[in-house]
Amino acid sequence: MSPRKQIIENSAEYYQLYLPHLSIDTVIFGFSESELKVLAIKMKFNQQWFLPGGYLKKKENINDAAVRILYERAGVSNIFLEEFAVFGDYGRSEDSFADYDDDLWHKQRFVSIGYYALVNYHNVSPKADELSDEFSWLDINNLESYPITMDHRQIIQKALLTLRERITYKPIGYNLLPEKFTMNELQKLYETILDKNLNRGNFYRKIKNMGILLKLNEQRKGGAHKAQELYSFDKTNYEKALQEGLNSW
Amino acid sequence: MSPRKQIIENSAEYYQLYLPHLSIDTVIFGFSESELKVLAIKMKFNQQWFLPGGYLKKKENINDAAVRILYERAGVSNIFLEEFAVFGDYGRSEDSFADYDDDLWHKQRFVSIGYYALVNYHNVSPKADELSDEFSWLDINNLESYPITMDHRQIIQKALLTLRERITYKPIGYNLLPEKFTMNELQKLYETILDKNLNRGNFYRKIKNMGILLKLNEQRKGGAHKAQELYSFDKTNYEKALQEGLNSW
Repeated sequence: MSPRKQIIENSAEYYQLYLPHLSIDTVIFGFSESELKVLAIKMKFNQQWFLPGGYLKKKENINDAAVRILYERAGVSNIFLEEFAVFGDYGRSEDSFADYDDDLWHKQRFVSIGYYALVNYHNVSPKADELSDEFSWLDINNLESYPITMDHRQIIQKALLTLRERITYKPIGYNLLPEKFTMNELQKLYETILDKNLNRGNFYRKIKNMGILLKLNEQRKGGAHKAQELYSFDKTNYEKALQEGLNSW
Repeated sequence: MSPRKQIIENSAEYYQLYLPHLSIDTVIFGFSESELKVLAIKMKFNQQWFLPGGYLKKKENINDAAVRILYERAGVSNIFLEEFAVFGDYGRSEDSFADYDDDLWHKQRFVSIGYYALVNYHNVSPKADELSDEFSWLDINNLESYPITMDHRQIIQKALLTLRERITYKPIGYNLLPEKFTMNELQKLYETILDKNLNRGNFYRKIKNMGILLKLNEQRKGGAHKAQELYSFDKTNYEKALQEGLNSW
């Protein structure tokens, strides 16, 4: 079936299934090789990059919808997922289907609820569907080089801003790093999110003060480099810090 | 006109004006006499407390709608207002109008976008309308003593949680304190939001380090108390800290 025909067929079904005017977009952050990346889908019908998204079923809680959409589009479950902002400017999405009939589901005004997720890059297996061509991890520092649809670039930037604020009051890393990691890798994650270099000694002291790390009796030996101590997160203390926040007051 | 008749009359008009399934609720925080309070409206038709709220016009940006609603319901404008969460559980509001026809506007499923505002308690002049009886500032530490409608108690608590997180990475006080204030008053504001006592010396040092205060050449003399130095916010530095955040990394 052509993408156009598929869209028109979906439209009728979506009116039955979903609440109108509301959509959900997810910003799925993955961290790999010192780069923060965002999962995006290239759509057959216009060859632009989209965030994985979907709609809210008529009797579904909105958080459940976000979990379902994340699973359906990216094959991930049981991961950190949080609503971060609402995108509700008039005209933000309506023009994308200009050459279809006005009663097309996709052409109505949508207010989109943004969720972001933190995932281990290697645990994600995105699924293509009838309308999508290709998945890719877009490098957050190189977003301007991709054709990104509608206000999805703005949605990614707002999610990144939220993530930057979040690491001042919540621990981060659990879903983004492998189980065992070096202090260097953790610092690199913080530096990548904050987009600035951190003083090694200060970083080490602050992270230690959070009490969320376990020093393993294990080292990583790497070629010409000095062997580095390995750490993992102390799950109980990490969860406690998530609940209570790292409130500095 | 009876409240019931008014609601039915509004329903027809609302279908013309507004986008279905979406509402906006505002949590308006005011600080006075060492207490953090939230503005609420008592409705004629069921004598419960509601947050000031409204709907999104069909061609209105959602942030503009929040500003309009805040002005229409509380008479305030040009104040700090920020979206903080979405409330979208199925069944959260539908039961409130159980004894009306099913096609009543108010009876549809609403996903509500929560905004919070910080205001100087004394600058607010709430306006009653045909459906509201009474306005009051509810004491945040005493919420359980009021009958509060639907999930509005949960909305207030989520807004308070957001405010608590926010003061770890953004300055606060500009809209909540009078123009000139003592260090004691500022500390009391932080203690009220955080719901805990702070060490006076630590607080003083941290606030000074932010560089957002101007020490005025002025004191407040108060009866039996020692005269206290007065401060105001350095508007330029305060705005800068708002933009850049108080990032401790």
